[in-house]
Amino acid sequence: MSGRADGYALDEIVARFGGQLIGDGDRRVRHVATLDHAGPDDIAFLANPKYRSRLKASRAGAVVLAPADASACALPCIVSDNPYGYYARVAGLLNPPAPAPAGIHPSAVVETRLDGSVSVAAGVCIGKDVRIGEGCVIGPGCIIGDGVAIGAHSRLHGGVTVYAGCVIGRRAIIHSGAVIGADGFGFAPEADGSWTKIPQIGRVVIGDDVEIGANTTIDRGALDDTVIGDGVKLDNQIQIAHNVHIGAHTAMAGCVGVAGSARIGKRCTIAGSAMILGHLTIVDDVNISVATLITKSIEQPGTYSGAMPFAPHRAWLKNAAHLRHLDAMADTIRALEARIAQLEKKS
Amino acid sequence: MSGRADGYALDEIVARFGGQLIGDGDRRVRHVATLDHAGPDDIAFLANPKYRSRLKASRAGAVVLAPADASACALPCIVSDNPYGYYARVAGLLNPPAPAPAGIHPSAVVETRLDGSVSVAAGVCIGKDVRIGEGCVIGPGCIIGDGVAIGAHSRLHGGVTVYAGCVIGRRAIIHSGAVIGADGFGFAPEADGSWTKIPQIGRVVIGDDVEIGANTTIDRGALDDTVIGDGVKLDNQIQIAHNVHIGAHTAMAGCVGVAGSARIGKRCTIAGSAMILGHLTIVDDVNISVATLITKSIEQPGTYSGAMPFAPHRAWLKNAAHLRHLDAMADTIRALEARIAQLEKKS
Amino acid sequence: MSGRADGYALDEIVARFGGQLIGDGDRRVRHVATLDHAGPDDIAFLANPKYRSRLKASRAGAVVLAPADASACALPCIVSDNPYGYYARVAGLLNPPAPAPAGIHPSAVVETRLDGSVSVAAGVCIGKDVRIGEGCVIGPGCIIGDGVAIGAHSRLHGGVTVYAGCVIGRRAIIHSGAVIGADGFGFAPEADGSWTKIPQIGRVVIGDDVEIGANTTIDRGALDDTVIGDGVKLDNQIQIAHNVHIGAHTAMAGCVGVAGSARIGKRCTIAGSAMILGHLTIVDDVNISVATLITKSIEQPGTYSGAMPFAPHRAWLKNAAHLRHLDAMADTIRALEARIAQLEKKS
Repeated sequence: MSGRADGYALDEIVARFGGQLIGDGDRRVRHVATLDHAGPDDIAFLANPKYRSRLKASRAGAVVLAPADASACALPCIVSDNPYGYYARVAGLLNPPAPAPAGIHPSAVVETRLDGSVSVAAGVCIGKDVRIGEGCVIGPGCIIGDGVAIGAHSRLHGGVTVYAGCVIGRRAIIHSGAVIGADGFGFAPEADGSWTKIPQIGRVVIGDDVEIGANTTIDRGALDDTVIGDGVKLDNQIQIAHNVHIGAHTAMAGCVGVAGSARIGKRCTIAGSAMILGHLTIVDDVNISVATLITKSIEQPGTYSGAMPFAPHRAWLKNAAHLRHLDAMADTIRALEARIAQLEKKS
Repeated sequence: MSGRADGYALDEIVARFGGQLIGDGDRRVRHVATLDHAGPDDIAFLANPKYRSRLKASRAGAVVLAPADASACALPCIVSDNPYGYYARVAGLLNPPAPAPAGIHPSAVVETRLDGSVSVAAGVCIGKDVRIGEGCVIGPGCIIGDGVAIGAHSRLHGGVTVYAGCVIGRRAIIHSGAVIGADGFGFAPEADGSWTKIPQIGRVVIGDDVEIGANTTIDRGALDDTVIGDGVKLDNQIQIAHNVHIGAHTAMAGCVGVAGSARIGKRCTIAGSAMILGHLTIVDDVNISVATLITKSIEQPGTYSGAMPFAPHRAWLKNAAHLRHLDAMADTIRALEARIAQLEKKS
Repeated sequence: MSGRADGYALDEIVARFGGQLIGDGDRRVRHVATLDHAGPDDIAFLANPKYRSRLKASRAGAVVLAPADASACALPCIVSDNPYGYYARVAGLLNPPAPAPAGIHPSAVVETRLDGSVSVAAGVCIGKDVRIGEGCVIGPGCIIGDGVAIGAHSRLHGGVTVYAGCVIGRRAIIHSGAVIGADGFGFAPEADGSWTKIPQIGRVVIGDDVEIGANTTIDRGALDDTVIGDGVKLDNQIQIAHNVHIGAHTAMAGCVGVAGSARIGKRCTIAGSAMILGHLTIVDDVNISVATLITKSIEQPGTYSGAMPFAPHRAWLKNAAHLRHLDAMADTIRALEARIAQLEKKS
């Protein structure tokens, strides 16, 4: 990260991002920090009113906060309806991505003519008929197959693999170890128990403004494409199977798995290690809780959960035994009901 | 994918793969497609009689289907007892793997003399005393340790790592980011809470016709070997621990984990994100359902399940509370039984 | 692995590691093996008294065992209070890591001047202002960002990525495909459903004697650092989110996920595929069972569990149906209680 050495005046920040400035517009800030750790060069933020009491002791140079908190702040502050989002933009301004030199490192093996503004690091392999938009940064050791297209101003960190024919939109950020476009898991069973591979001839097509985490895998489609919508955010170690569609602005946390041909709506949030079965549909604006297995389509927006609660081992052992016998327990209850009804009749 | 430009006549296909041709044997097909999307150059398939009604509207050049569906089809068709498997073979014929030039890219670092038919891409590192069979394709950036053996006609996509001494059979397909032969997780506990590493000196030994997905990891054995049988298919992001044995033709979907020294039989299917504990045995022909944790040996073929059902969050919250108190619920039921018995005695 | 060709005399081993020798101190051993497979050149161990009967038939050259088992052993033996730990040290002596030549391979791209004892393999990329301690081994294709620091005698296997600014201690072992320091998953939600990226400007700081498995990912902190304590052991495919702290000597098995800002104590063990939610605290000496989801802080040492038991599919289907209706079941039980109380009053 390498922001401007002398930082930005609050006036400049408000001119760029809006919001209402209270206090000295010439005050310069160079870093972002938490309210507790910020010093006079730092800008902090208050998004949760629960932490309002921390304003008093903060030594921050400035604070971004909501209208309701402004009166509690003696420091220079910028008032925004979305202080966390405002802070994110300021943090991005103060911490731009590390610059990367335009041009192709001599150790890279590039079989396509690229725009002069593209940065290709050491050890990169780029195949034939590849299109890479202006200002893209391809980190060390990336492997870009034949016919791939990557939109302008995207950044692939080191060690990303993109198989032949896949399409990535503008302003993508893809982290190390991500694999885009490996074969989907498709095999036809034979009578002798063996499997015949089904060629996977679809692509992965990724929209604009997508971020993909480290070691996440997105398989190419079997016949049609796997499609990742604009603004989708995928954390690390996520597995997206062939022919999945993910709607715009949906976010998934680490270790999520999505099975083949699932269709997930827009603006969904999928918490860590949730699993989504194949060939089902989830509408827009659905939230899936952590470690939840989705086994059928979801037709209403809302939050869905299904994790098993934990307990001290001894208590869990007892409960787990009953879990194996819930059906018997239900039978017992029904039998008791019958016996009580019998007694009630008599009494 | 790069099939023959003018495709194949149905006669040629039947000569190669068998099946009964109904209709014009000179009809040429160049691509595979779904019944709904196929045009006159395409061959489609019907494996599930549920979709038989789609035959009528299909514009496919030909269809692969089962004997029972043949009479419903006015298009040229190939009748097979296993239409999906037949389709898979035709799709493989029409979509052969991309050709790779024989020989070693000048940027590769290869310390073993290889057969001239082997294709070694840019940035590959191959150690000493390696054996690579004829026609193998080693993709960009692969790392092959000393003493590795890879059977003929195997293809490692870019960025695969194979540690020293491991053995891979013929016709393997290994996807990017897979790591074969890293150390198993073996440590001896010390009195002060620290751990002493146990060297992992076994190998990974992989049979013929195995496919391994992107970012899947298979650890080397501690003393003996980790063994993957012929025809095993592993999807992405699977973790196979040290000393595991997997029987021939077993298939595992994404995100499965298998702990150390588990022995899994032949022709098993393990659905996504299932976990299998260590030091247990699963017989042949077992199916494990999605997200199921196998905690003890399975001695009978069949299907085994153990996932927690999901629900709208509010409903789940209520049920989860009861899950923590099943033992108390069982006590209550027993007490009710006693009270009813007492009442029954009196009445 | 490449130990001394003529092995070690038992006298030498005891001089190095302590323990009490019973039998011929000149006896030489060259390999470790199990009691069942060991021959005269091999040293085996007996840690579990359950296997004591195997001593009789063993052809091992020597055995490491506990005081209580010594009298049952007719072979030369070394008596130790911790025979498994002792065996681990002997195994390490007999199987030292493969040597790696000091110096920088000509194909590596290194922008920092390194100590002459460091081994840098082919295809490695090392940025500016990097510090790498003496005797480190950097495997093929590793990517080391600007400003990284790695302590002496660490070994990175091929294909490890360390992002800019991260710190790794001494004697680390990091396996292929591990990604250290990718961006944490931090985004501010906007009113239109899109997300604004929050720059991740913390580091990953890793202590001494840490081992990290293949394809494991550890994200950099958002503002502060992600911290991995001394002696921590992480298996494969683990995901550690931003700002997590892991205490010394904690060990995690494969596929574990830890969400952002969780604080895990010292000497904990986390079994495979367990998930730990964010912003919670787990004290020292906690054991988390396999596939358990930890949803709140744990304040007492002990073992905690929460996996769903598996069953034959048909039995599970029935139980799963009841799982969805536990709340109704509890209502029924309460109603029965009331009816019984009513009957008891009458009788």
